[in-house]
Amino acid sequence: MLKEAVFHRPKNNYAYLYKENTLHIRLQTKKDDVVKATLIYADPYNWDDSGWIYNKADMRLIASDQLFDYWQIEIYCKTRRIRYGFQLSDTKETLIYTEKGFYKEIPNDDTAYYFCFPFLNPIDQFQAPEWVKETVWYQIFPERFANGNETINPPGTLPWGSTTPTPTDFFGGDFQGIINHLDYLVDLGISGIYFTPIFKAFSNHKYDTIDYMEIDPQFGDKQTFRKLVKACHQRGIRIMLDAVFNHSGYFFEPFQDVLKNQEKSIYKEWFHIESFPLRTDPAPNYDTFAYVGSMPKLNTEHPEVKSYLLKVASYWIEEFDIDGWRLDVANEVDHQFWRDFRRQVKSIKPDVYILGEIWHDSMPWLQGDQFDAVMNYPLTSAALDFIAKEKIDVKEFVQQISNVLLSYPQNVNEVAFNLLGSHDTPRVLTHCNNQVEKAKLLYILLLTMPGSPCIYYGDEIGMTGEGDPGCRECMVWDENEQNVELKSFLKKLIHVRKTEKAVANQGEFSFVKTSDNYFIYKLFQQHMEIYIIINPSNQALEVSLPVTKWNSAFDLWEEDDFNINTPIKCEENSFKIIKVNYS
Amino acid sequence: MLKEAVFHRPKNNYAYLYKENTLHIRLQTKKDDVVKATLIYADPYNWDDSGWIYNKADMRLIASDQLFDYWQIEIYCKTRRIRYGFQLSDTKETLIYTEKGFYKEIPNDDTAYYFCFPFLNPIDQFQAPEWVKETVWYQIFPERFANGNETINPPGTLPWGSTTPTPTDFFGGDFQGIINHLDYLVDLGISGIYFTPIFKAFSNHKYDTIDYMEIDPQFGDKQTFRKLVKACHQRGIRIMLDAVFNHSGYFFEPFQDVLKNQEKSIYKEWFHIESFPLRTDPAPNYDTFAYVGSMPKLNTEHPEVKSYLLKVASYWIEEFDIDGWRLDVANEVDHQFWRDFRRQVKSIKPDVYILGEIWHDSMPWLQGDQFDAVMNYPLTSAALDFIAKEKIDVKEFVQQISNVLLSYPQNVNEVAFNLLGSHDTPRVLTHCNNQVEKAKLLYILLLTMPGSPCIYYGDEIGMTGEGDPGCRECMVWDENEQNVELKSFLKKLIHVRKTEKAVANQGEFSFVKTSDNYFIYKLFQQHMEIYIIINPSNQALEVSLPVTKWNSAFDLWEEDDFNINTPIKCEENSFKIIKVNYS
Repeated sequence: MLKEAVFHRPKNNYAYLYKENTLHIRLQTKKDDVVKATLIYADPYNWDDSGWIYNKADMRLIASDQLFDYWQIEIYCKTRRIRYGFQLSDTKETLIYTEKGFYKEIPNDDTAYYFCFPFLNPIDQFQAPEWVKETVWYQIFPERFANGNETINPPGTLPWGSTTPTPTDFFGGDFQGIINHLDYLVDLGISGIYFTPIFKAFSNHKYDTIDYMEIDPQFGDKQTFRKLVKACHQRGIRIMLDAVFNHSGYFFEPFQDVLKNQEKSIYKEWFHIESFPLRTDPAPNYDTFAYVGSMPKLNTEHPEVKSYLLKVASYWIEEFDIDGWRLDVANEVDHQFWRDFRRQVKSIKPDVYILGEIWHDSMPWLQGDQFDAVMNYPLTSAALDFIAKEKIDVKEFVQQISNVLLSYPQNVNEVAFNLLGSHDTPRVLTHCNNQVEKAKLLYILLLTMPGSPCIYYGDEIGMTGEGDPGCRECMVWDENEQNVELKSFLKKLIHVRKTEKAVANQGEFSFVKTSDNYFIYKLFQQHMEIYIIINPSNQALEVSLPVTKWNSAFDLWEEDDFNINTPIKCEENSFKIIKVNYS
Repeated sequence: MLKEAVFHRPKNNYAYLYKENTLHIRLQTKKDDVVKATLIYADPYNWDDSGWIYNKADMRLIASDQLFDYWQIEIYCKTRRIRYGFQLSDTKETLIYTEKGFYKEIPNDDTAYYFCFPFLNPIDQFQAPEWVKETVWYQIFPERFANGNETINPPGTLPWGSTTPTPTDFFGGDFQGIINHLDYLVDLGISGIYFTPIFKAFSNHKYDTIDYMEIDPQFGDKQTFRKLVKACHQRGIRIMLDAVFNHSGYFFEPFQDVLKNQEKSIYKEWFHIESFPLRTDPAPNYDTFAYVGSMPKLNTEHPEVKSYLLKVASYWIEEFDIDGWRLDVANEVDHQFWRDFRRQVKSIKPDVYILGEIWHDSMPWLQGDQFDAVMNYPLTSAALDFIAKEKIDVKEFVQQISNVLLSYPQNVNEVAFNLLGSHDTPRVLTHCNNQVEKAKLLYILLLTMPGSPCIYYGDEIGMTGEGDPGCRECMVWDENEQNVELKSFLKKLIHVRKTEKAVANQGEFSFVKTSDNYFIYKLFQQHMEIYIIINPSNQALEVSLPVTKWNSAFDLWEEDDFNINTPIKCEENSFKIIKVNYS
């Protein structure tokens, strides 16, 4: 057995409170090494004259990546206290793995050898809003979705869709435009809108905030925003706003005050200023977002700044009843700020969704005390590299996705914000070199894998475009210019997801077959499994489902009964969604 | 290279903010595998046309245990943002290790491959009180230290030291007794007292609290306690109290109220009650400490309980100016409670010491948001197994200690609460089978290794006794019955520690030589190193120091100049403390 590959550490993705009194415990071993893993566990206070009285339960091999196998078990802890270790067998030996290392026999003279999850306190459980699991998001870049009120167009507004945008163009998209098209979103099946920033700002993207308490006048006023939120809520659509709290814009009043009054400004501690006089050229002598002088970093450790930003966070919930905050550059703001942020917003609206923009391993923010989710960029890149760019093969895709899923607790994965593109990246269809069938496979992955999926406005009608500004074209409303077939496909897919809760994070996910040119995963609940077959290759395949028990089967996509004894014909660049019932 | 053994994950003991703008980054590799480890790092926003512009710096092999080597580097981050990876060479190949896995070449087309410490926010830095690093603690079990006021003796008090205690005896130890003997502690060199519980309780050990706001009358009143704290502070001695917040005692008024009023009690949610009527026999139908019915677990998630206990925590600081809280059974109380606890007590007294009783891997409590330290039981057991019980050899001891030190950030290790025994364990000398020379070696380790050492009352004068109640005998005040030689030894050792700050957590610790029957570690500062040689074997040895540069050397124990060119004679069960200066 390769001892060096065996890994476990409690209170993160390896051991976490999944639900009341219930722990998930995971273990890493070398790939294809250990053949059996058994959990040894008990309340640490369970003793009799013979020593510690423990239980045993077999673990399940749930995933593998390039180097490792991952085992998991769900354990109900009646007394909510548990010490545990692992009994591991390969073909040659059996070893006991504990916090103190490896043993040949199970030690029971002391519990100090063992890993410890000392008490399953409910308040420490990671708990995200339930509604997020079923939500299908739609990302709107407000300047480009629809112009519903020309009287508030900013100066120099161009006619809608008249030209490919430059980084500084304005087309006058606004809230009234969105309100006018809400039925379009309802028809598509959307249940959440994520808005890029809407607060008063200088640019068309509004990430350079001037006033966090005001709507940008080009989008409308507070009354219109309130009307928008209400209209959405009436239609079962939740609203998430973008909180740019890492940095302000150059024209944010406190920063302007420092520019004007320099060392005498009462706001000088709101930023991270190296020296006075404050200057922007040749390089800023203050901390910024990246090296962008027009985006001064806010000192979120300062009580006044913190109090101000938390007031902002509360205000838009209390006054406008928004349902979520997406936190821009969330990883560069201090943890203490986010802990207080969570406490405050959840005290106002307990089921508000807190989504952090983090691109790397985010476990430190997902312990239950800070965010509900992060943007699942690892899924984005794995899916695009696999289907669109064909840079990685089936095996590597499955390994990458397994790795992402194993990096977090299952209850974190269920609310991950899954996306294929955004206002910062080339559009999905452009990534796919305009091959619509490829895009469809990407949407199958997006809509059926664990997480809360988001569609970037216009992607559903086959809009194309390279990265910013190419991906920020005006929404195309003329149906003759829309890919209505792609739109119908997505509408149907969203419908399947709404009807079959197993594909909306109510089923347990696992890969069940990885072949050279296709793969199958399933989502299972009691007495029911949904199998998804993906054939991204350029040839039709005959596939059989690895089903051991079944009473009936149904092709959810073709909406027809399904004969599980017949091999399944799966066309090139195609998929199947099969539901299997058993008793 | 054994890829499966390579491990790193940021924001714990593997990457942490050590001090302003300064990160420590660690890496695990297979033992004796990698020959060179280099950090590849830069601000993620440092780009030019050729891609990401990174720096390189060699890491240092700082420790090894049974399976792994550990590498470390200290990095100053001017812009406080860093992405990083590792270039690893064994004798055959060079690989790049990143968050996304292994590569053959250094990727610089994107920073997303790399590990990320997104921003070094000072507020997230683990910061424990500076004074703890230099403190030498003395643990007092108040019932047994000294009886200074016989008028408050509890009923049935036995004459001081008249008999070996049973679990329920009283001998009348009290605050006045402690006050009377403070000069004894000053003479010994003590700078902190850790008291086991002093609040009103039923038992002699007082872990079964009746009233958290009252001093137990057998110890004195609040006035006497205030006098005690003042007298200690005047002598440079800090005071730490024991907070038993996981559970109350059976006679705690709210629990009595539930017993009396059952379901109608306004306190019924203060505990974890399964069903009514509340019963203790045959087994409690409420959560308890372990399975002890007389210690009902407190519901620390309940706002009233939390508010009450935080009031307790504040009260003894605000009113009596105590300097630390030792948190009993800290791991079974929720993290949210401890975060609020920290916030509250630090807002009153920023340099209060928060010490958790945790027996297992405690990283989740030592991230800077909860505790300052935990009780270092792994050091206790390694030291006793090695020196006293001779169960492990030099190599295994060094591995175990390396493992403990590598499990936590360096700034955590500097304030770890190190102990050889307590009111729950056999006394040091008893562990040593009455071999005083063995005990002395244990004290050398205790007083010179990283952490804040604590001496259990009476151990310094050679008291003996098995576990509770044997280790709770009355303090022996008759000098004729004290081991004055051991006391002098300890006094001298504490003096060395006070004089040479390098052995009081101001020097960087490392093992420099591990032989079959002895080992050497050093504590280094700029231009100075202190070498400690431990020979726990039964034969005298000739040892040479692995010193490469020196101007002068001094034997700190013998208080004499030291000739570094001569082999050092180290007697059996003996030690040397040598200071080397160089320019």
